[in-house]
Amino acid sequence: MRMVDLILKKRNKEALNEEEINWLIQAYTEGNIPDYQMSSLLMAICIQDMTDEEAFHLTKAMVLSGDTIDLSEVDGKTVDKHSTGGVGDKTSLALGPLIASCNVKLAKMSGRGLGHTGGTLDKLESIPGFSIELSDVDFIKQMNDIGIAIIGQTKNLCPADKKLYALRDVTGTVESVPLIASSIMGKKIASGAKTIVLDVKVGSGAFMKDLTHAKDLSETMVEIGKKFNRNVSALITNMDEPLGEAVGNSLEIIEAIETLKGNGPKDFEELVLHLGAHILVNAGEAETIREAIGVLKTQIDNREGLNKFREFIKAQGGDDLVVEDYKRLPQAKYVYEVKSENKGYIQSINALAVGVYASKLGAGRATKESDIDLAVGLKMKKKIGDYVDNDSTLGIIYSNEELSDESLNEFRKIFVLTHEKIDKRTLILDVVK
Amino acid sequence: MRMVDLILKKRNKEALNEEEINWLIQAYTEGNIPDYQMSSLLMAICIQDMTDEEAFHLTKAMVLSGDTIDLSEVDGKTVDKHSTGGVGDKTSLALGPLIASCNVKLAKMSGRGLGHTGGTLDKLESIPGFSIELSDVDFIKQMNDIGIAIIGQTKNLCPADKKLYALRDVTGTVESVPLIASSIMGKKIASGAKTIVLDVKVGSGAFMKDLTHAKDLSETMVEIGKKFNRNVSALITNMDEPLGEAVGNSLEIIEAIETLKGNGPKDFEELVLHLGAHILVNAGEAETIREAIGVLKTQIDNREGLNKFREFIKAQGGDDLVVEDYKRLPQAKYVYEVKSENKGYIQSINALAVGVYASKLGAGRATKESDIDLAVGLKMKKKIGDYVDNDSTLGIIYSNEELSDESLNEFRKIFVLTHEKIDKRTLILDVVK
Repeated sequence: MRMVDLILKKRNKEALNEEEINWLIQAYTEGNIPDYQMSSLLMAICIQDMTDEEAFHLTKAMVLSGDTIDLSEVDGKTVDKHSTGGVGDKTSLALGPLIASCNVKLAKMSGRGLGHTGGTLDKLESIPGFSIELSDVDFIKQMNDIGIAIIGQTKNLCPADKKLYALRDVTGTVESVPLIASSIMGKKIASGAKTIVLDVKVGSGAFMKDLTHAKDLSETMVEIGKKFNRNVSALITNMDEPLGEAVGNSLEIIEAIETLKGNGPKDFEELVLHLGAHILVNAGEAETIREAIGVLKTQIDNREGLNKFREFIKAQGGDDLVVEDYKRLPQAKYVYEVKSENKGYIQSINALAVGVYASKLGAGRATKESDIDLAVGLKMKKKIGDYVDNDSTLGIIYSNEELSDESLNEFRKIFVLTHEKIDKRTLILDVVK
Repeated sequence: MRMVDLILKKRNKEALNEEEINWLIQAYTEGNIPDYQMSSLLMAICIQDMTDEEAFHLTKAMVLSGDTIDLSEVDGKTVDKHSTGGVGDKTSLALGPLIASCNVKLAKMSGRGLGHTGGTLDKLESIPGFSIELSDVDFIKQMNDIGIAIIGQTKNLCPADKKLYALRDVTGTVESVPLIASSIMGKKIASGAKTIVLDVKVGSGAFMKDLTHAKDLSETMVEIGKKFNRNVSALITNMDEPLGEAVGNSLEIIEAIETLKGNGPKDFEELVLHLGAHILVNAGEAETIREAIGVLKTQIDNREGLNKFREFIKAQGGDDLVVEDYKRLPQAKYVYEVKSENKGYIQSINALAVGVYASKLGAGRATKESDIDLAVGLKMKKKIGDYVDNDSTLGIIYSNEELSDESLNEFRKIFVLTHEKIDKRTLILDVVK
């Protein structure tokens, strides 16, 4: 097989077959196809697209390129969750314990964050003592005992994807439904869980800017999942403004705990309940979404979700007293309450600008090697559509350095006001299953 | 400027501006843009195309990437000629002396062949003593004295193109009108001649398979030439079958000489006369094509073209007696006359198969380092539309090894017969100027 023939085929908008896709992913992973040929093919895929069949074969080839996780020794139902990423997204932290308390087991390999805030692992590490390393045996044991484990990626899952992603990033070939879908689904399939729920973010603060593309991506991923005999649902959710209030590592831990106590921000609670409900229905633990939401609300009211979070922290060596005493988490030296200087309805809150602001405070990493400050971050006290007057609190800034008036004003400017009434954003835009 | 932004722009079918194109060609030539980014951009160009304006800027950037040849010291009118390449194409060898005898000077930098047969330089080197090396001073002097010089490329013309072409060849990005046009025109502009005539081959034996693409390419190249204030014409000519009869280095020299004596194959003579006529008209040496053809025919009849060829050979150290005594050229040990075994009209003669056959005899190079056998080759004695019976000679094979019946039969099979009458091919399909 010659790579140039496959490139020409795709350039001419023809479909590559299973054998061709397997060959090219294997040869590329082994270093036998140079980057300059792969990037040419990737651009042809971006413009000429792939069929669902091709996207499935590509996903399979990704899975076959590395290790897979065997969850067969876990008793009961296993679930995995993926979000395409947004500002203030701490969903797994509340969702995991909540569904684990309903007998559905979350086995999650997570990553560190690069960008606005830390990843799930960074957030968990703001809990004193918490360890993200578990042996294979301990991982399975914890899944069986408690029903939830979140650890760093130790296995070599989808090395082909890792190599391809690095290349796509520098060759203008990131935005492509089949390439994104196979990248996400490859890792989810390799991770072994039978039920998968996807949170596809759309909006100004997300990677996907419009609903059409988000729906296309969701449908492609759900199709791929079905071909692997997994139960997959995708929720398309709004990311025109940050999710919940907290942006920053320990602040997001607190918000997850508050949500498990029933005091979470409305939008964040809504997302956790809906993602959880789809998991329970897909896993056969509830008949309808409405029933499942009822079950989950009960688990919040009776604190079963919160108890599960404590068990989980304890099992991975963390200080579970943080749940009642937030002072045990890293604390920022300076706290600034920023008030509005005008009145009106909030028209927009640029989520990316919020992320960048948090990152500048030290909540995110610029490079893989950067240090991260687990204490700092933001609390966004207003949502799009809220009315504010001259004295309303827009947000609270947690910093380890003194901030200038200029810097506070920069934060204030993120909230754009108008005199006309503005509708609140709908959080859950669509469901694909 | 970031390469990835330019890639995304072109991916979105937007035009790159002059500054962007200059930057990317310069940075790539200097090794500051990696191949994997350039190949991604090339694929985007292949699929999303470029405007005439972009193609012009790309050509200019190619020219600026290297040396240019200054022909200002050549008295009189200078011309350059380019063919997109075909089997049996020895046009420059007859055309050059003929127009030089009409006072229009051909300054040509040529290449060695890679593929079916040798390039113009290889063909010339089958003349004993002929040298393709001239100093700058001798090159200009010979142009002024004789009006024709064909030499190897000593200057570093369009190094960007050289690097880009090597990459396009292995990344499925060869077929693209703006990329082909800027590659060809870059070298022609850098070579300095005021008048340029292009022979764009189309058909089964050419790179361009259909007239629409050939016309598109021709128009783009003529447009580019105009923007550089050059007189450019493009003839779109048929390459469904080999040009003339001879395929092979010394055999093609003989055919060029025979054509200058008035005994050339009809199709080859027609092409030489028409290309020559467009040159004379563009250079202002004739009013009309018809008049110019008359002038050129006279130069054949009175042997002025042939005399110019002798002067040219002599000036570059070659044995000019070859013109009267073909035995002074390399001779093949074995000569096979291959006759038809059936009767009917010739429906097709696969030009590529002819080229491959000649190459197997040793007339072409497999790699840059391969040796070439200057004596071997083919004479194609029949054209599409000719009627043959059981005893007609299809062609003559010149070989330095004994050939098996199987091998002769392979040659015979290149001629596909049918019982129905077949029209002769029209050689000159269109003219763009």
